[in-house]
Amino acid sequence: MPDPLRDNLFVNLASTVSEELTHVLASSNSVRIERIVSTGHSSPEGFWFDQDEHEWVVVLKGEARLAFENAETIYLKPGDHVNIPAHRKHRVEWTMPELPTVWLAVFYKD
Amino acid sequence: MPDPLRDNLFVNLASTVSEELTHVLASSNSVRIERIVSTGHSSPEGFWFDQDEHEWVVVLKGEARLAFENAETIYLKPGDHVNIPAHRKHRVEWTMPELPTVWLAVFYKD
Repeated sequence: MPDPLRDNLFVNLASTVSEELTHVLASSNSVRIERIVSTGHSSPEGFWFDQDEHEWVVVLKGEARLAFENAETIYLKPGDHVNIPAHRKHRVEWTMPELPTVWLAVFYKD
Repeated sequence: MPDPLRDNLFVNLASTVSEELTHVLASSNSVRIERIVSTGHSSPEGFWFDQDEHEWVVVLKGEARLAFENAETIYLKPGDHVNIPAHRKHRVEWTMPELPTVWLAVFYKD
């Protein structure tokens, strides 16, 4: 039996100004686990994520600010996690520009 | 609308020799996200986890060794993650005794 897939969240962080890096780490019909690396990226002005799935997300390295429609903006440092119900509109307002911000996101259904 | 639940993975790590700490961070019918804190804990000798759900797990702090039936033992340092299919028998062979080992585990269905 082959060894299970093992990988590290904190390698291959290189990203460019033009695009974020997204890797699907595991998935099934009901869940999708992604590592996202942002380096100064943010959501376009006026854009809101409006997702069919719930999203549990944690910042593991770096720093970010998440904005929610009709609510306060929250600042996330490593270890800070937030659960975003489906269709709760949100956007990434800011990520630190100098160093990669590593997110782990779990998208899931009811 | 209330702010979304925000919490930090790296606070309240105190555990005792007698038991691991487990917190469910988010869950639905199809997924359960847990933070587990081990401080020198391991699975009982001869015990194997044999789970109905798949488990994606990452070590975020500390160090651990996971054993799989009929396969090599793997050593996990922070950031190392592994996807364990349902019913793949495994056990926690060792976690570092001096400091808490923080796991993030996502249990999920097909």
